[in-house]
Amino acid sequence: VPITTIEWSGDASKPREGHVRLIDQTRLPVELVHIECRDTETLWEAIKVLRVRGAPALGVAGAMGVVLGLRGTKAATGEELVKETDEVAAYFATSRPTAVNLFWALDRMKAKAREFAAKADGGFDTGFDTEEALRELLAEALEVLKEDRETCRAMGRHGAELLPDEATVLTHCNAGALATADYGTALGVIYAAVEAGKKITAYCDETRPLLQGARLSAWELTQAGVPTTVICDNMAAVVLRQGKIDAVIVGSDRIAANGDVANKIGTYGLSVLAKEHGVPFYVVAPVSTFDLTLDSGDKIPIEERPPDEVAMPFGVRTAPKEAEVYNPAFDVTPAANVTAIVTEKGVLRPPLAESIKEQLG
Amino acid sequence: VPITTIEWSGDASKPREGHVRLIDQTRLPVELVHIECRDTETLWEAIKVLRVRGAPALGVAGAMGVVLGLRGTKAATGEELVKETDEVAAYFATSRPTAVNLFWALDRMKAKAREFAAKADGGFDTGFDTEEALRELLAEALEVLKEDRETCRAMGRHGAELLPDEATVLTHCNAGALATADYGTALGVIYAAVEAGKKITAYCDETRPLLQGARLSAWELTQAGVPTTVICDNMAAVVLRQGKIDAVIVGSDRIAANGDVANKIGTYGLSVLAKEHGVPFYVVAPVSTFDLTLDSGDKIPIEERPPDEVAMPFGVRTAPKEAEVYNPAFDVTPAANVTAIVTEKGVLRPPLAESIKEQLG
Repeated sequence: VPITTIEWSGDASKPREGHVRLIDQTRLPVELVHIECRDTETLWEAIKVLRVRGAPALGVAGAMGVVLGLRGTKAATGEELVKETDEVAAYFATSRPTAVNLFWALDRMKAKAREFAAKADGGFDTGFDTEEALRELLAEALEVLKEDRETCRAMGRHGAELLPDEATVLTHCNAGALATADYGTALGVIYAAVEAGKKITAYCDETRPLLQGARLSAWELTQAGVPTTVICDNMAAVVLRQGKIDAVIVGSDRIAANGDVANKIGTYGLSVLAKEHGVPFYVVAPVSTFDLTLDSGDKIPIEERPPDEVAMPFGVRTAPKEAEVYNPAFDVTPAANVTAIVTEKGVLRPPLAESIKEQLG
Repeated sequence: VPITTIEWSGDASKPREGHVRLIDQTRLPVELVHIECRDTETLWEAIKVLRVRGAPALGVAGAMGVVLGLRGTKAATGEELVKETDEVAAYFATSRPTAVNLFWALDRMKAKAREFAAKADGGFDTGFDTEEALRELLAEALEVLKEDRETCRAMGRHGAELLPDEATVLTHCNAGALATADYGTALGVIYAAVEAGKKITAYCDETRPLLQGARLSAWELTQAGVPTTVICDNMAAVVLRQGKIDAVIVGSDRIAANGDVANKIGTYGLSVLAKEHGVPFYVVAPVSTFDLTLDSGDKIPIEERPPDEVAMPFGVRTAPKEAEVYNPAFDVTPAANVTAIVTEKGVLRPPLAESIKEQLG
């Protein structure tokens, strides 16, 4: 999969000179355009309007965003560094509320700043080395990126074993290379299965309102040579009933301790339809997606997005002004509808609450 | 409901001078534009590209279309009249394949031509009166229109009794005034309930790919003062799970003898979701929608429409060219998922095969 969704552009030893480079996913599939984020506002806006999206990619973006926000720092003490890091992290935390990976990555950067501060303040002869602090923070962000790459490939290998040698997979939204650094969670399973010699074809729900399935998943799957068919979300029930689908595979933005799964709006309905037709429903997500502080999915905050995403697609009015619009960006699939969750550590089977506790608790 | 979807414009006694006037539904909700169909090609194209759509409205359009096609007739015998009528009817029968009401209305006009021909040819002194033939055919088409109006109101009354005094109804596609002459099937139930003093609010699935729910149902419901919320199709599962919906009400394009229901793509999935959440699923359709020659829904022909309806909404490419598109316009909901079918004759309850046989057989 020759797609690099997000990367740090520049020398790892010179954080002040580097920046974040990412694919502007709002322009796909029409054109492949990159944007160079040289300040936090540009990256924050890119996250907000979904130029970069997908839970793992948001983790990478958040980690790199912290470095971006510190490029001009004059912090002369550990305390100042921690304060500035916290401020930048708090800023990025306001961009999107549901994907826990973003908060996980921001927390990780905050912890790194504290670690450095403690180390520096504990020294006698050494003054506070701001440049070294920046280098360590960038190294941490690059480590988040590297781990994401490795994690995706591990999930792919575990997930690929769940698929028969010839399989048709239905997916929703984009949990692919474009949702991670470069390989994908749900679609990583397809890529890994193909690499393992399996014959895989894909159906993509277009995924209204923002059409990530049609625009992004179908784009990257066809780029990777996987035969792909796009359908409207409301056609999924029909292809399931026709017996065309061997597995439904989706990603996740947050998973509660009991195995309830938050993911793109439409996922819950799809899980009901998969169950009705006896088709396995797999969720593929890295360990960083689990939020064990929540015992159930009821407590996952669900982002509501602007009505015009529904009522004004491509600037054309489709619903009358007099009508209300309800536009939740995510929904929660109860653990009971999930056949298995694939993480980088392996395959979690029901009862999910116990499997999660055992593997991650 | 101050909406006249389709009408015959002109003096009923001068068929050669009249024409078909209809709302161009492809322009809604942005603007209310009428088109005047003075030849069969204009009306055929209007049916094909869904300027006029909805099973009952297609019946009216087909009946009037036959008169339109005979405006220039020089038929001098009953035989010639029958031949020309059959030709015009055959032409309109090629416009859309799924809605049986269209074929039902065309057959009715063909039968009327035969009836007139038999009567005329049976007379001794009377020559063949072409003008009288045209007047009788137009009268028949206007009768189809009048019956549609009465039928919708009768369905509305029967259906309204199924709703509690305060109810929120979820509907899919448009089975409203715009799908009939002027009152609607599924939405007619809402209008009748409101007229009966009930407090009704509505959710409309936007209904991809052509967005009839957002564009048409939400438009006519808000015009009628019904509080309306538009959602994407993939959000229906969430509002059902939230307990917001008291009933799902849809129309139909064809109903088989066993109670299987063909309707807009997405209806089947919605029926599964309604069942999962214990919400009643009502189908509202006139008797002319039943096709008792088919024992099950498997035999209903399903129209597949052009891929660009999915991949190029509003002329903007949303899916890559390399991807296939599957675009069935309808699906079939098995009788087992249907709580009741409302016709102008009353409410049909399961077992539907028996109720249908009893009421219509």
